[in-house]
Amino acid sequence: MVIFVTTILNQMEKIFTKEYRVTHRDTDLNGRLSLASLGSFVLDTAGLHAIELHTSMEILNSMDLTWVVTGIHFDINEMPPIHSLIKVTTKINEISRLACKRDFLVEHEGKKVAEISTEWLIINVKTRRPVFLVDVLPHIKDLVTPGEGAEKYKHLRFAIGKPIDTSNYTIRYADIDINRHLYSMRYIELAMDMVDLETHQNKTIVSADVNYISEVLYNQQVTLIINQEGDTSQIEMHNANQKPMFRAELVWKDK
Amino acid sequence: MVIFVTTILNQMEKIFTKEYRVTHRDTDLNGRLSLASLGSFVLDTAGLHAIELHTSMEILNSMDLTWVVTGIHFDINEMPPIHSLIKVTTKINEISRLACKRDFLVEHEGKKVAEISTEWLIINVKTRRPVFLVDVLPHIKDLVTPGEGAEKYKHLRFAIGKPIDTSNYTIRYADIDINRHLYSMRYIELAMDMVDLETHQNKTIVSADVNYISEVLYNQQVTLIINQEGDTSQIEMHNANQKPMFRAELVWKDK
Repeated sequence: MVIFVTTILNQMEKIFTKEYRVTHRDTDLNGRLSLASLGSFVLDTAGLHAIELHTSMEILNSMDLTWVVTGIHFDINEMPPIHSLIKVTTKINEISRLACKRDFLVEHEGKKVAEISTEWLIINVKTRRPVFLVDVLPHIKDLVTPGEGAEKYKHLRFAIGKPIDTSNYTIRYADIDINRHLYSMRYIELAMDMVDLETHQNKTIVSADVNYISEVLYNQQVTLIINQEGDTSQIEMHNANQKPMFRAELVWKDK
Repeated sequence: MVIFVTTILNQMEKIFTKEYRVTHRDTDLNGRLSLASLGSFVLDTAGLHAIELHTSMEILNSMDLTWVVTGIHFDINEMPPIHSLIKVTTKINEISRLACKRDFLVEHEGKKVAEISTEWLIINVKTRRPVFLVDVLPHIKDLVTPGEGAEKYKHLRFAIGKPIDTSNYTIRYADIDINRHLYSMRYIELAMDMVDLETHQNKTIVSADVNYISEVLYNQQVTLIINQEGDTSQIEMHNANQKPMFRAELVWKDK
């Protein structure tokens, strides 16, 4: 099955904007928007835009397909405080045969909060293998707004030899989502949990690159390890067989 | 310091309504609104109403005071699915010398999702002791809308002798909020995590009573224990000295 969309989209519809309010649960101990909530807003905007573009999760699910996010790059200016209204603008910036790059600009009172890029694949839910985008969504090639976009996420290939901290964790009910695997923003929270309190209190995050390598299921036992070199934190989640499931690199600066 | 508000509020302003959209992160493995996200919406509505009523967290903080929630009762009809728009209506239903009871009606497409009652104290942030409400917010007595309200939360006095499951947990960065203690809805998530997957999959929650006994801090080690009798789950969180910090009673029914 293939979705044919005959509607001609104008340039305006290829760029989508949504406003969010930073509520209590979106802030961390500093009273500012957390990286995971920023990520949730961005994913929500992507989902709403995909509905308008006829490329939604629901359409893919009806063909036994689904979008999966493979990596995110966050370039952060300043996280806004509680009660802020933020504006998220998104567009598909680039597609290749397998991957779709979607970018975001996040603003607060006309100032840049963050630029974010995400990369997505469409996988078959049964084979878990990626499919060619235009084979299942032929109109996606008309949805691209090329030109300046956010920086791509880094492919993190580090191997943490001697972690400064290690933590075992078993995936729980509240960690999994409607797809019955670890929610993509919970990976980020579990990575942020590895960073010591002093860094969270005294520093502010400048950039983050995350790589989603494997899905993590309910009741699965994972281990998180962290290394810290200067203002860079490298975090890896691996499964019981030491296979990496997720990597994150966070860069901090003094407040 | 005392806040004097001379504005005369009309009946309309004493009742406050806010709409929310159920997004991906608000749903659980069943694709329906989770108890913790429902709780977050309700707390957000309370916070926004409090700003309008000049009884906000910010006003209290300026006097070294803060609102603390002591208990919640959830009476749940049916949790709405992802993408639903829900309407939360709230009012202060009752005050006593120390406690303020705030009620909520949550609706989806004109049908009742839930009725919820919350109880709040104002404490001095230094002494951690409650204060008389009218001593610090004299106008609060004019903000009450008596009459029919949601059922009050149960004071849970159970002692779980032989738990069917026990789990140790150390409070992490992502669990704490702007007040630097365990976020009230994370207590609920940690309680829900204790319920087995089969119950989450095959049953639906009918009611929940939660009692907040003590605040839980960053890096604190807690133990969660659960007992299950028929369709009732009783969960207790205690600290390293067996002192109870939180209790929850959840009632389920078959889907």
